[in-house]
Amino acid sequence: MFPERFNAIRGLDPGVLCSLLARSSRMKSDPGSFSTILKGKTVLQFFVENSTRTRLSFESATRRLGGMSLAFSPSSSSLSKGETLADTVNVIRQYGVDGIVVRHRSMGAPDFLADATGLPVINAGDGAHEHPTQALLDAFTLGECWGVDFSKAGAFRNRKIMILGDLRHSRVARSNIHLLTALGAELHLCAPATLGIPDLGLFPRVHVHSFPDEGIPEMDAVMTLRLQTERQNQGVIPSLPEYREFWGLTVERAKRMKTDSVILHPGPVNRGVEIDSEVADSGRSLILKQVENGIFARMAVLASVVGRMDS
Amino acid sequence: MFPERFNAIRGLDPGVLCSLLARSSRMKSDPGSFSTILKGKTVLQFFVENSTRTRLSFESATRRLGGMSLAFSPSSSSLSKGETLADTVNVIRQYGVDGIVVRHRSMGAPDFLADATGLPVINAGDGAHEHPTQALLDAFTLGECWGVDFSKAGAFRNRKIMILGDLRHSRVARSNIHLLTALGAELHLCAPATLGIPDLGLFPRVHVHSFPDEGIPEMDAVMTLRLQTERQNQGVIPSLPEYREFWGLTVERAKRMKTDSVILHPGPVNRGVEIDSEVADSGRSLILKQVENGIFARMAVLASVVGRMDS
Amino acid sequence: MFPERFNAIRGLDPGVLCSLLARSSRMKSDPGSFSTILKGKTVLQFFVENSTRTRLSFESATRRLGGMSLAFSPSSSSLSKGETLADTVNVIRQYGVDGIVVRHRSMGAPDFLADATGLPVINAGDGAHEHPTQALLDAFTLGECWGVDFSKAGAFRNRKIMILGDLRHSRVARSNIHLLTALGAELHLCAPATLGIPDLGLFPRVHVHSFPDEGIPEMDAVMTLRLQTERQNQGVIPSLPEYREFWGLTVERAKRMKTDSVILHPGPVNRGVEIDSEVADSGRSLILKQVENGIFARMAVLASVVGRMDS
Repeated sequence: MFPERFNAIRGLDPGVLCSLLARSSRMKSDPGSFSTILKGKTVLQFFVENSTRTRLSFESATRRLGGMSLAFSPSSSSLSKGETLADTVNVIRQYGVDGIVVRHRSMGAPDFLADATGLPVINAGDGAHEHPTQALLDAFTLGECWGVDFSKAGAFRNRKIMILGDLRHSRVARSNIHLLTALGAELHLCAPATLGIPDLGLFPRVHVHSFPDEGIPEMDAVMTLRLQTERQNQGVIPSLPEYREFWGLTVERAKRMKTDSVILHPGPVNRGVEIDSEVADSGRSLILKQVENGIFARMAVLASVVGRMDS
Repeated sequence: MFPERFNAIRGLDPGVLCSLLARSSRMKSDPGSFSTILKGKTVLQFFVENSTRTRLSFESATRRLGGMSLAFSPSSSSLSKGETLADTVNVIRQYGVDGIVVRHRSMGAPDFLADATGLPVINAGDGAHEHPTQALLDAFTLGECWGVDFSKAGAFRNRKIMILGDLRHSRVARSNIHLLTALGAELHLCAPATLGIPDLGLFPRVHVHSFPDEGIPEMDAVMTLRLQTERQNQGVIPSLPEYREFWGLTVERAKRMKTDSVILHPGPVNRGVEIDSEVADSGRSLILKQVENGIFARMAVLASVVGRMDS
Repeated sequence: MFPERFNAIRGLDPGVLCSLLARSSRMKSDPGSFSTILKGKTVLQFFVENSTRTRLSFESATRRLGGMSLAFSPSSSSLSKGETLADTVNVIRQYGVDGIVVRHRSMGAPDFLADATGLPVINAGDGAHEHPTQALLDAFTLGECWGVDFSKAGAFRNRKIMILGDLRHSRVARSNIHLLTALGAELHLCAPATLGIPDLGLFPRVHVHSFPDEGIPEMDAVMTLRLQTERQNQGVIPSLPEYREFWGLTVERAKRMKTDSVILHPGPVNRGVEIDSEVADSGRSLILKQVENGIFARMAVLASVVGRMDS
């Protein structure tokens, strides 16, 4: 039976991950067969940190499975009156909630909520910890592009993927490192020294670089991370133009990539900072495909965690 | 016929109140029988003052009766462009509204809206005046706990209930004073001298105390009120720790209560101020039961006021 | 076939405008016949500028045609994280959107979005450019009041209409100038010299005045515009009381109007500034009728642009 929470890629069995990816694919090819899985169920969309894209994606996924969403808006809530997180959620669950999708600035908040409420919980991003459905949609998008069969182990064997940018603050990167290595890919992590993660080189099949230029011509995919432009004033990068020059996915760098290689970005994009506009809009960019596939990956997770659907 | 507004407990016939409480009970035991009472009807949730719990409770109650909610969010509205309240509501009603649930910082706003629009109105809290559905759910929760029959007069006769805290600013307390005395309870009101209500001692069966310690061992129920922590800077209480020491429902005070007595709090709770965490989470705390029952009490009111259901 | 965007009155064929007005009338007299035109369709309500009345009006119109709304709230969105407008909308459309209603502070944003997405777009107000559904509802309300037949050309021939107030910043005025002249009305535009639009006198059947007093006794209708009270501090009007004295629709000025003449205002109203309370609430005021008719005018536009309904 699928666990009642989906809060981290780390620690999940590769078989479970592959079955979620295979199901995402079926959700996309045959959406009509899944339209009643959440019938009569209500999912609390508990976004304490602002987000439009991820919230709309989960709400859309919930609706396509036949479920209803109950949106929680932090600004107008009793959280701002000093109520504890557990009290807030225990109050809300009285309104009839069958599962919680949670985004929170604190790492571990989703597990805390699952423990405090006993309800099924899905992590939609917790601090700099994990963002597991984003990794799922990234892997699903790559697999679809490469035509792999997720029901077989090691689907990404012999694939070289670079994750480029502010690794230290990126929950997207953390979830992807666990998922992509579980699928057998060879990972190349590249960040400014001030924005890296120590000890990543100890992982099998993970290589660490300070600059992207040496590795980029060998990659099958490059995933650029969003740079929070506030970092400019925190002494971790010299300036936005210099960040672009050394770590940005510029037109020049993209030209040095293999012809059939692809580019991902979790969005929202800072055009001209971590990626050039021409690259983001080029034929090898999977950015909009990622957004589209996000709905199917989230449908697959919601079906398991809230709908208790067997694989 | 039930009146077309439910804006205050004060002035309502005890028979009407008892029939609402009896119906709340039926709403809880047999929810399926009431699922079409608001079919095709739209309820405007007009919350000019921020609130999550009460708004979600009313929206949930509306949905369970088969109705739809139209949410009004003040921050993005023309109220902030200087439009009058009556103009705003007269505009909104053109969109097809069968009733209004209103929360407003000004006392009397619900009656004003009912007069201005001619629509059925339910008060969800107006300034420091009344919060009548909160009192209803409190009484329903106590009655359920005590196994009383609301169809008989004087259901709370011989019950001693203390309301403890900032009475002066509490609409919850005002509504409860009227409802609990109408049900025949003996009330003990206890507030710091700076936060009391003058002349309450003139009511029959109402006793006034400056400190809780003397009365607490005789109570069947203690309802603690939320302290707005901003009061600390307004010269009405010495400090939060001192408030807790003299008027808080601490572990020590709770130990001195009768074994089968119960504790209520309208939420959100300031743990360690007006109530200790151990007390709020103890077996005698009805706090989560209050939230759950709030939906049924509000269904009962919506059914009468908007659904025009006969008792 | 109706165009896939409705972003401006200017440039539209008078026949198209008349057929929209005639259909608004049928939407009002026979609402049941149109309740499935948007069945299964989702309309993105993309309001980057705050608005309650127009947003609720479009949401209500969408619902009455059987469609669903997806609301976009700018404050919690990735627009505030520096994402471009086109990226934001391209992301949102992945969630399944059949049309966009857009309000934006920049002129031209609706056309930009229609070009960028290829989706049907309706302008709900763009900067100081146009607000075409407002003009439609204004003309519909006047025509209903006068009993005209919109299926005949020149429905407003021999009607004299004054638009009074801050013309320069008014998208409502711009849309109405194009629509009312297309219907054959004689327009009298009146604004303080600092708030006028140059060269309007070159239009056929358009007269320009600096003060309203001379023309007002001959008008069949006076449409007063909202004055943004912030203008007081921008050096374009002497003061709010002086604005009222010279350009406000006061009780005195209203008395000098023809007995059967009527008054319009797009709302929200600044009572005592551009219009006196007694005038706004008088029998000749069509203000609430405008709000009500807004739903039918928007249903007519949504049915054409998103529902692809033939006239």
